[in-house]
Amino acid sequence: MCDELRLLGLIRGVGPLDKAAMSAARRRQGELAKPPGSLGRLEDLSVQLAGITGKVVNDPAKKALLVFCADNGVVEEGVSVAPQSVTAAQTLNLVRYRTGASVLARRFGVELTVCDVGVNARLQDSRVVSRKIAYGTKDIARGPAMERADALRAILAGADTAAEAIENGAGVVGIGEMGIGNTTTSSAVLAALTGKSVHAVSGRGGGLTDEGYARKLAVIEKALALNRPDPADPVDVLSKVGGFDLCAMTGAFLMAASRRVPAVIDGLISAVAALCAVRLCPEAAGYLIPSHASTEPGYRAAMDELGLEPLFDLHMRLGEGSGCPIAMMILDAASAVMGDMATFQEAGIDDKYLEPVREMEAGK
Amino acid sequence: MCDELRLLGLIRGVGPLDKAAMSAARRRQGELAKPPGSLGRLEDLSVQLAGITGKVVNDPAKKALLVFCADNGVVEEGVSVAPQSVTAAQTLNLVRYRTGASVLARRFGVELTVCDVGVNARLQDSRVVSRKIAYGTKDIARGPAMERADALRAILAGADTAAEAIENGAGVVGIGEMGIGNTTTSSAVLAALTGKSVHAVSGRGGGLTDEGYARKLAVIEKALALNRPDPADPVDVLSKVGGFDLCAMTGAFLMAASRRVPAVIDGLISAVAALCAVRLCPEAAGYLIPSHASTEPGYRAAMDELGLEPLFDLHMRLGEGSGCPIAMMILDAASAVMGDMATFQEAGIDDKYLEPVREMEAGK
Repeated sequence: MCDELRLLGLIRGVGPLDKAAMSAARRRQGELAKPPGSLGRLEDLSVQLAGITGKVVNDPAKKALLVFCADNGVVEEGVSVAPQSVTAAQTLNLVRYRTGASVLARRFGVELTVCDVGVNARLQDSRVVSRKIAYGTKDIARGPAMERADALRAILAGADTAAEAIENGAGVVGIGEMGIGNTTTSSAVLAALTGKSVHAVSGRGGGLTDEGYARKLAVIEKALALNRPDPADPVDVLSKVGGFDLCAMTGAFLMAASRRVPAVIDGLISAVAALCAVRLCPEAAGYLIPSHASTEPGYRAAMDELGLEPLFDLHMRLGEGSGCPIAMMILDAASAVMGDMATFQEAGIDDKYLEPVREMEAGK
Repeated sequence: MCDELRLLGLIRGVGPLDKAAMSAARRRQGELAKPPGSLGRLEDLSVQLAGITGKVVNDPAKKALLVFCADNGVVEEGVSVAPQSVTAAQTLNLVRYRTGASVLARRFGVELTVCDVGVNARLQDSRVVSRKIAYGTKDIARGPAMERADALRAILAGADTAAEAIENGAGVVGIGEMGIGNTTTSSAVLAALTGKSVHAVSGRGGGLTDEGYARKLAVIEKALALNRPDPADPVDVLSKVGGFDLCAMTGAFLMAASRRVPAVIDGLISAVAALCAVRLCPEAAGYLIPSHASTEPGYRAAMDELGLEPLFDLHMRLGEGSGCPIAMMILDAASAVMGDMATFQEAGIDDKYLEPVREMEAGK
């Protein structure tokens, strides 16, 4: 089957949230022994989980973090503080559990899959899953990042990676990335999809100077003017001004939704991929779980488009999926509340454990 | 030794944060392989932890949640939605792991200590630690909540409870409560300590109607006018318009600081107790870790006084210490980053694992 049709099949496989399970979950929350609504977003998360799985009580005990790694030709324009070789080095450090996201994943028992979809190096480590499309994309300031066919391949590579994690038992997947230059491509995709100004959706990435930031804005403007991506066709946008990482993440978000598994968004790049997934398939939105508020300005714009509020704000902007393990702990908290708290009926205590003190004794 | 002297000894035992360890921790964060500052508050937490323990790398693996339970005579004024008997019932449900905070503690491996410092019932369950001062306080709208001597006893009971948890190995303690009517006493203490208006620091607790809320405000005004607590003397404030839970929590915060152990604040009541601890001993402030932003309006006022920003906002307002286990996971995240991430020097990858692709090959 051709890749366009495979993508269409993936999109068509995404169903709506289970409204009956959500109603039952909301009702159950009202029965738990606490002031109504007093567990706030933990209650909302438990209701969303019910809608995703169709069950009122959930416990996504097995968790996976998928990190898609790829290089971006646009780094030739000097839009990044770090050299391109950092992508390859950090891809290897990820599987060695020495990077931010990987130490957090290990700490919280989240299984890590590191997938090379386009790193500009031959990586000699079998722990990296290789689904390489090419040795990095081309420079979006001089032409399209990739052919449409390669964008489709990368989307499906991400989908396959998510499918494997889910087949291995993951009840929730986090979706992160590693790729020098990918805040530039993400901001370009975001500007193309939303029509917002490049300035409004672009930040300083790993720490650009004023001069570097001005160059980044100019490069994105140039890439958009030159490639003229079609906002109604997310695959066109991804192929012209995106990257292999963004494509793969988009596919992973779609696959999670099609398998009725919650997918946790990390920072800017992950949020832009989630938006691409939702533009391809609006029903995928129900399967998204935000994590932290990234300080990258485009993050806010992407969340507004998705209608989501981040769960926490720790002023993080590392990427790699580093926000996902913490969000998964919050999801665990939501599951524990729904699964283990007593209802008002159950909370009534048998008199034999409770000898009431007469009122005259009260107050000593 | 008299209790006033014991409290003074506790306060004098609180030392400053270890500035040298904090500098070393900040330096180490700068060496870790990530854009500077990109792990935001996780970095700040790791530096604070270093200041608390004197070590750059920390891992408070053993965690304790201390929940202090007590009744408040002011419920006779109709300031609470729930009947007083809920305090006793939920105290028992806590040790049965059926309440919000206890299911979260269990989920995250946090050891739970439930301490009765003033529940208005004889609790027949040996899992409740009994340090009962009395069967509830007196009605603050008609006189002081308790004698000063009882406030001191309750403060020291809380300190002893924290000391036991720390002696049992806890490297971090969370401090929560259960006590119908304690948003009323907390708001009264907060207004007395800060001079802020009662309206600005009082909320609807478990879900008061407009009428109930107006009554709560009037009751707090009356209690303050009648008892005239001395804002310069936190023990006076606690004894006149506070409660046994607030006293014990204050003592627990002080003990954690004196043992150089981080203490996690939960919601409004916990924040007010933390403020009492800091008013008694300004250096205790360095040992405080906030958790969630409570939706109770007084919470914000207390945090402003403490100069703290909550770590997350899940719209929770349950109390019991329910925010603490989640904050402890974030503290774990901060510890993992500091302990396990590679430095820039370590992140350099040996060439044998990395075969660079010639530039002409890049982009396929």
